[in-house]
Amino acid sequence: MDKILRVDMSAKGGPKASVEPVGKYVGLGGRGMTSLIVADEVDPACHPLSAANKLVFAPGLLAGTSASTSGRISVGCKSPLTGGIKEANAGGQAGMALGRLGYAAVIFEGAPAGDDLWKVLIDKNGVSFSVDNSCRGLGNYDTVEKLVKVHGEKCAYVTIGQAGEMKLGAASIACTDRELRPTRHMGRGGVGAVMGSKKIKAIVVDESGTTPPQPRDPARFKEAAKAWVEGLKRHAVSGQGLPAFGTNVLTNVLNEAGGYPTFNFKEGRFAGASKISGETQAQLEIDRGGLATHGCQRGCTIQCSGIFHDKEGKYVTKQPEYETVWSHGGNCGIDDLDVIAQLDRMDDDFGLDTIEMGVTIGVAMEAGVIPFGDAAGALRLLGEVGKGTPLGRILGSGAGVTGKVFGVERVPVVKNQALPAYDPRAVQGQGVTYATSPMGGDHTAGYAVATNILKVGGFVDPLKPEGQVELSRNLQIATAAVDSTGMCLFVAFPVLDQPDTFQTLIDLLNAQYGLSLVGDDVAALGKKVLSAERGFNSRAGLGVEQDRLPRFFEQQPLAPHNVVFGVKPEELDRVFNW
Amino acid sequence: MDKILRVDMSAKGGPKASVEPVGKYVGLGGRGMTSLIVADEVDPACHPLSAANKLVFAPGLLAGTSASTSGRISVGCKSPLTGGIKEANAGGQAGMALGRLGYAAVIFEGAPAGDDLWKVLIDKNGVSFSVDNSCRGLGNYDTVEKLVKVHGEKCAYVTIGQAGEMKLGAASIACTDRELRPTRHMGRGGVGAVMGSKKIKAIVVDESGTTPPQPRDPARFKEAAKAWVEGLKRHAVSGQGLPAFGTNVLTNVLNEAGGYPTFNFKEGRFAGASKISGETQAQLEIDRGGLATHGCQRGCTIQCSGIFHDKEGKYVTKQPEYETVWSHGGNCGIDDLDVIAQLDRMDDDFGLDTIEMGVTIGVAMEAGVIPFGDAAGALRLLGEVGKGTPLGRILGSGAGVTGKVFGVERVPVVKNQALPAYDPRAVQGQGVTYATSPMGGDHTAGYAVATNILKVGGFVDPLKPEGQVELSRNLQIATAAVDSTGMCLFVAFPVLDQPDTFQTLIDLLNAQYGLSLVGDDVAALGKKVLSAERGFNSRAGLGVEQDRLPRFFEQQPLAPHNVVFGVKPEELDRVFNW
Repeated sequence: MDKILRVDMSAKGGPKASVEPVGKYVGLGGRGMTSLIVADEVDPACHPLSAANKLVFAPGLLAGTSASTSGRISVGCKSPLTGGIKEANAGGQAGMALGRLGYAAVIFEGAPAGDDLWKVLIDKNGVSFSVDNSCRGLGNYDTVEKLVKVHGEKCAYVTIGQAGEMKLGAASIACTDRELRPTRHMGRGGVGAVMGSKKIKAIVVDESGTTPPQPRDPARFKEAAKAWVEGLKRHAVSGQGLPAFGTNVLTNVLNEAGGYPTFNFKEGRFAGASKISGETQAQLEIDRGGLATHGCQRGCTIQCSGIFHDKEGKYVTKQPEYETVWSHGGNCGIDDLDVIAQLDRMDDDFGLDTIEMGVTIGVAMEAGVIPFGDAAGALRLLGEVGKGTPLGRILGSGAGVTGKVFGVERVPVVKNQALPAYDPRAVQGQGVTYATSPMGGDHTAGYAVATNILKVGGFVDPLKPEGQVELSRNLQIATAAVDSTGMCLFVAFPVLDQPDTFQTLIDLLNAQYGLSLVGDDVAALGKKVLSAERGFNSRAGLGVEQDRLPRFFEQQPLAPHNVVFGVKPEELDRVFNW
Repeated sequence: MDKILRVDMSAKGGPKASVEPVGKYVGLGGRGMTSLIVADEVDPACHPLSAANKLVFAPGLLAGTSASTSGRISVGCKSPLTGGIKEANAGGQAGMALGRLGYAAVIFEGAPAGDDLWKVLIDKNGVSFSVDNSCRGLGNYDTVEKLVKVHGEKCAYVTIGQAGEMKLGAASIACTDRELRPTRHMGRGGVGAVMGSKKIKAIVVDESGTTPPQPRDPARFKEAAKAWVEGLKRHAVSGQGLPAFGTNVLTNVLNEAGGYPTFNFKEGRFAGASKISGETQAQLEIDRGGLATHGCQRGCTIQCSGIFHDKEGKYVTKQPEYETVWSHGGNCGIDDLDVIAQLDRMDDDFGLDTIEMGVTIGVAMEAGVIPFGDAAGALRLLGEVGKGTPLGRILGSGAGVTGKVFGVERVPVVKNQALPAYDPRAVQGQGVTYATSPMGGDHTAGYAVATNILKVGGFVDPLKPEGQVELSRNLQIATAAVDSTGMCLFVAFPVLDQPDTFQTLIDLLNAQYGLSLVGDDVAALGKKVLSAERGFNSRAGLGVEQDRLPRFFEQQPLAPHNVVFGVKPEELDRVFNW
């Protein structure tokens, strides 16, 4: 992974590729790589859908190696949703394949002149491009099915659905999992719209004929990789909770904590929670012949996913994540897992961020387009997005636009990106992350739920403002670093709680690259990435005034704890004073 | 005019009013009054449609007196369109009536809990409120017709149409003219949505039983008022061009200059311009028994308006303004005055900003929703707004939202507000005003067309960046001052060109208020207003990075002069260095 592939989509006669050394970006993977390149190379004032924007893919530093859970793929660009820098990442097979092909990053720049859609093939021979309009207007499932017939089952497929083609603000980029299903999404911030604006319908990554990247110190690497698996398995979250129930184990936890946003962030507890909890979901999956435990990529030991079947035992979708079950479920007053799974399937197929779409439907419910709890209505609304009707385009543009179009005041977004499944009034550390993350409303950017609710990495009272700024700061730094290794974020639980597992992660990197990193280097990396991202945002016009929650979180108390978000603006401005 | 009327729309049992002395706001009218109050009292971080926003009306300092052309009414709030401070103003009779009633400002704050619509009656006895749902869903024409039956022909009516009720970003507030037609609009920035969010469908201003505000020095006032009329009549623009042809006299001028934005700002000259010019329009009005010269309010000597009849000689609308004829005409490739007049009528009726709507339809044409030049399609699209269909709501939310929903890159907005009828590449001083005005894309905020094209107040080459920053700075200061007198902006032509007319304006203010203002006080007032507005915007998150044109104006040359906007960002940042 010592080279960068650069593709000029504007070139006359079709895209032109060049390969350059990784150069100054050495030692960066995932988010670190995409954010540094975007911050360096993209005009912060450009229109996100213009040729001046760039779409940067980057695998993690250990992608393609035998280190468990290391195969996330990141994508970065200027976000059409937030107007700031964006990194989104996904599991599936593409990150590992890129790693085996030796690419530390793939940069798409420019945009083709015509209306043709392009297919990009990256394999051991390099990269090639072809006009391929055969999948125009198709969802990700049909697109991948067609592509597999041509390129076979050994490739990873990175595609956009109808939403990306329409360049909608909620459009995602799909990656295939081990079973070649387009269920792993770089979801947030409209990255699919940028891929659509560059007229790239599909990227086929064929790792055939490659070998895993060789460690500089194979013996040390082997030893660390073994300790790494042991560390992941030893922690209760990554070793037990996530494998057994997936991320949806959180439904009961957050509902119990009174921080489960219900009816478009009106209340903190949902009466129907137990009907859509991870425990219920896992049992249903098992009863119907699906899977309650499943890995999205080769070699992952956490196996947080699953396979959801319908009542007839037929595959519907991968196990819907907690945030998806929440956004389409409790947030909309819907307590039917079959409906939620169908909505998840549609999101994956059209290529949409499930968080953004669930929150958007909640806003539409708030506007009275359909009532809260209307499952059939939610299915109909989401169907409109796939069809590209005016209503569908509104919804596919996300919660912020939907709020504007329908004149809604209660719109739970930060930097125009929908807030996820943790109410910032009842999980105040999470509120600090939502407000201040350069990514906009994002739970993964500094998952204070861990310490506020799960008591991982200590405990900070979730209902009080005290200590939340420091908590979010430290988590945002650590997360930016973990995201820059390309590791799945779920490794953060054992890494935060088990000092020896933290050291093992460093050992893996040192063994693979012949480095001598120490713990402090990790924090330095995180700060470097955050600073680059915040610098871009500042130049793009997102200043500290955008590092705020919508006012209603400070004014309208949340039941059952009847608490408002209490971290003051001037305290939020201290998050990045390190 | 020494009192402020404050209305709490949130009060239990219905709106509650109180009257307070004008206090620290003494000496301010129009924009100066609204902007200072909004900057002082409105939470810059509030949602514009929330109860925390305020809607402030203010007549001019000479409203209700015999001074010609002094009766504009301003409205201010936090804008749902730009997210910053907003002032919009209109002619018609309401400003004069408020002046005679002695109100320097009327402040609506809070919002009622229920869904009822309210009617506000302001008369010599004070103010009263009534629930009135009889006009719900009606356009401004039908609304006013119903109200006139109740309140008679001596009142001024301030209303919103369907767009304001729907709280759309392009919603305006209508004022009736002398013939009780709702044709005078506080158009820009979604002020009608804020009125809708406060559930105020109509404000009836009844000046019966009042007398004009008495000057402190009647003899001096009478003399100045006479000199004022003479000054307005002496200048070629206010004395001849505007009375004869209205603002649409500019079509041929801008088209000739190559600065007439055509096909959504793709070209600078429109082949059909002569078919929709002011000269053609005036002749058509005369031929059909309308009026080519008409005043929107009592006692205006400029009389820039007219009355537009259809082929059967039946009233359609007031004479469409230049910016309206351009936005719905050349910008959309439509060269049919009857269609344009119909679109103008629909905008007035639904309560929509004509500039925003024409630019929005142009963006929809760019997206391929309908082709450029499709007159029937444009009528159909605008009709959707009145019906409140999803497509109509998209369009009624303005050009920025429409661009997002349809994935369009070329969206001519600044601070999310549509740019008016002067291409910033061919009228570069105007580009500086668009970029930097606290109001967002706005031509009136510093009308550099005067000096770039009309050679009023000197001449600065419109195609070159040199001198534009100074030009725009001086014009923005002067305009903020003129807007704060409540004078119609068209007095700026003689005021800028004729030193004695400038002095006459100061004489009028001094005679009315017993003051001893001098020329420098005017500039100081303008700076004070601009500073307050920029302070609000900064606190609302609109920093210097938002003081920019969309990038395409710097990158895509405009025919016929093949020129790009050449004023550099660092120069734009000097506009307010005074």
